[in-house]
Amino acid sequence: MKGVVILFKFIVKGTGFSSVDPKNVEIFEEALFCISESGTIAKVILPEDEEYQSTIQAYSMKNQFQNLKKGQFILPGFIDLHIHAPQWAQAGTALDLPLYEWLNTYTFPLEAKFSDLVFAEQVYSDLVSQLIKNGTTTAMYFATVHRQASRRLAEICSEKGQRGLVGKVVMDDPEQNPEYYRDESPSTALAETELFIQEIIELNKRTPQGVYPVVTPRFIPSCTDASLKGLGALAAKYDIHIQSHCSESDWAHDFVRERFGKNDAFALDDFGLMTEKSVMAHCGFLSDQDMKLFAETGTAVAHCPISNAYFGNAVTPIAKLLNQYQVEIGLGSDISGGFSPSLFDNIKQAVMSSRMLEDGVDKECCSEKRGVSNSRISLNEAFYLATAGGGQALSLPIGRLAVDYAWDVQIIDSSELPIFSKEEPLMAIFQKLLYLSRPDNIVEVWVQGRKVHDKFMKELEVQM
Amino acid sequence: MKGVVILFKFIVKGTGFSSVDPKNVEIFEEALFCISESGTIAKVILPEDEEYQSTIQAYSMKNQFQNLKKGQFILPGFIDLHIHAPQWAQAGTALDLPLYEWLNTYTFPLEAKFSDLVFAEQVYSDLVSQLIKNGTTTAMYFATVHRQASRRLAEICSEKGQRGLVGKVVMDDPEQNPEYYRDESPSTALAETELFIQEIIELNKRTPQGVYPVVTPRFIPSCTDASLKGLGALAAKYDIHIQSHCSESDWAHDFVRERFGKNDAFALDDFGLMTEKSVMAHCGFLSDQDMKLFAETGTAVAHCPISNAYFGNAVTPIAKLLNQYQVEIGLGSDISGGFSPSLFDNIKQAVMSSRMLEDGVDKECCSEKRGVSNSRISLNEAFYLATAGGGQALSLPIGRLAVDYAWDVQIIDSSELPIFSKEEPLMAIFQKLLYLSRPDNIVEVWVQGRKVHDKFMKELEVQM
Ligand SMILES: [Zn+2]
Ligand SMILES: [Zn+2]
Repeated sequence: MKGVVILFKFIVKGTGFSSVDPKNVEIFEEALFCISESGTIAKVILPEDEEYQSTIQAYSMKNQFQNLKKGQFILPGFIDLHIHAPQWAQAGTALDLPLYEWLNTYTFPLEAKFSDLVFAEQVYSDLVSQLIKNGTTTAMYFATVHRQASRRLAEICSEKGQRGLVGKVVMDDPEQNPEYYRDESPSTALAETELFIQEIIELNKRTPQGVYPVVTPRFIPSCTDASLKGLGALAAKYDIHIQSHCSESDWAHDFVRERFGKNDAFALDDFGLMTEKSVMAHCGFLSDQDMKLFAETGTAVAHCPISNAYFGNAVTPIAKLLNQYQVEIGLGSDISGGFSPSLFDNIKQAVMSSRMLEDGVDKECCSEKRGVSNSRISLNEAFYLATAGGGQALSLPIGRLAVDYAWDVQIIDSSELPIFSKEEPLMAIFQKLLYLSRPDNIVEVWVQGRKVHDKFMKELEVQM
Repeated sequence: MKGVVILFKFIVKGTGFSSVDPKNVEIFEEALFCISESGTIAKVILPEDEEYQSTIQAYSMKNQFQNLKKGQFILPGFIDLHIHAPQWAQAGTALDLPLYEWLNTYTFPLEAKFSDLVFAEQVYSDLVSQLIKNGTTTAMYFATVHRQASRRLAEICSEKGQRGLVGKVVMDDPEQNPEYYRDESPSTALAETELFIQEIIELNKRTPQGVYPVVTPRFIPSCTDASLKGLGALAAKYDIHIQSHCSESDWAHDFVRERFGKNDAFALDDFGLMTEKSVMAHCGFLSDQDMKLFAETGTAVAHCPISNAYFGNAVTPIAKLLNQYQVEIGLGSDISGGFSPSLFDNIKQAVMSSRMLEDGVDKECCSEKRGVSNSRISLNEAFYLATAGGGQALSLPIGRLAVDYAWDVQIIDSSELPIFSKEEPLMAIFQKLLYLSRPDNIVEVWVQGRKVHDKFMKELEVQM
């Protein structure tokens, strides 16, 4: 014990997986993760390090030591870059409809109901809990046009311990939005947004894991020039995150070209909406010029592979964005264009959709012309998107098991997974964790050094 | 009570969903499902029927009445038409590899290990339990070349109460199979297969839910003409099921064309392998002529959408097979070319893959040429494939909530699903059940009138 001073809040001993870069995953085998008072990883001690045994002993004696059970593994918590919180109430429904009908018959009427704070509380509270149980430690949300309900969402994230980035949605163009559900005018849209920003900045002061306001034009077609311009200015004034949809479908892409004579990316840039803190969802129809602009401005892509299968009209070329243009990319569930709250599901679909882009889909084409060469991404790359890539997209120190990163993790129990050999290589176990875990296998979730989910405790009181 | 004679083994009261045809789902709201001694649905009594109340009372008094809890729903058990049981040990791994390497570096060495009955017992026992927990009440398995381990798989199905169709795999061509893993010769392949058939026919006599032997040439490239011919003869002699792979990938398709100058379907037909009881996996590259032959012979397609995303090189045109040619189709997990043991996952992927076939994947194509019109299937159709379609494929009375069909059901608890309105239409709930259920939401599974899984009882003793 001699020489070991208690410097850390607690220590976790276990085997974890973390992205080094998009293609490579690092394995920390039986490492000691030393967590600071502020909930970050202060140090990682490996079994070959001299202080390994003495550190275990010192922290065990103080009851500040967690030794993961056999078969349990650590993954960084997942980062959902794109999710419409109110649409949780209709997740999984009406996906057989065309987008227009889906929006007008289901989605807008549903979102309009969030003027009712009781309803908002019910849906948002359930959603945040479900996301945490699914291993999502950070989420970037579209709420609705309603400032108060949107603030309630941020408060729920704060209370439940999830790191939340929340946007009051702006959709003010009377020609493109239903009268029962839109901002009254550009000026009210901007005033409400600014008030919202200030409220969330206040809330953030008492939220250890962070809650952040996000400037959120729904997408170009739903906003007037005035509101787009004003939102760009607000983002600059407060130096905050921006989110929107960009080049999602044939329809949206063509609409913007007609209105501005340019692609979404350049139109957004004109309004000051392409920044280091911007996240644009879908991006299925980016030109090479658009991709370059994303890279230059540090704007990130939120890839939503499940949703894109329904409404995207094409597969977003992730391998090209990642390898050729080094664009920042993460994953989004896009509830409820995507049905699943789980980024495990989106990791798998990201891999599958990329394979389908590479191989093509139509057997009538000869195999040479059927797909797009070099489009596939590996499981490691999809894992990177859900973790380190998401952290980079948000410019936050999250998504990695690394010093100075937040202790945002999910602990997965593999005992129900098909592992029949004691010599199973850790990389094979990693693949099984990603492909076969169910929410039920996630036994604990931690955010910023605090436990926010424990499978074996019904309702966990998050200690502030 | 007067007038109600106890005719049934028990009665279940609840709301269930069942396919009428590929496009339409029937809702039985608060119906009484009357189960016979032999485990079939003998009668369905609806609330408006005169005997409804008296029947409830009579069976309640006898303790032969199960009233589903609020929020619980009945779906037919799922039918997995294509699964490689030994590959459960590697599910989710090595999917980044090309097919050839995946087979030779991982799959064949793994399958070879099933000469070891202890290992076989361990893997097969876990797999069958997991499938049942995932709501799969019937599965059609590829085992390995080993007769004894294959028989063990059938015994495990028999013991655990799952309806199993099991094939000892035949792969006897010395040029196409590794020396350490193949049938020694056509004659041993056929002799072992016939012995296996006889053993399983015996086993079936003491298995209420049924276990069936399946004639199983791995695929044309791995078999000699002699074994293919002999297998067709055995199938005819015993009037039993047949399974193989058909037109799976560019490579397989081209190989068969070179060897026989015709497509897989016609080559298989020449050997007597296309029958009413045949199920062919994948079928991504069927010509219109092939499709016609499938329809004429009553041969079914096992659609494996997850696996196809990795190894299929194209999307199987299900809508065309279903609507234009009325081919029998069901779903297969294709463990471990597909990673998931869940047909819920395959239902969702079937829908998504069909949407991606319809819309296309390559944004560089103009939207008119990008995809194949009318290729999408609805969620109802995917559900049909997993249930009634699978039953039709196997020519067994399973997969529907209908009189004279087996009581093979899964009971799903919706209380964790995002349902926030008491007026949520039942069809919306149905969609949420399919899109959002996890194995953890499946509270009970029944096969042939016997409970084979109960979430709240650890190990269920199946009463014979
Ligand atoms: Zn969206
Ligand atoms: Zn197969």
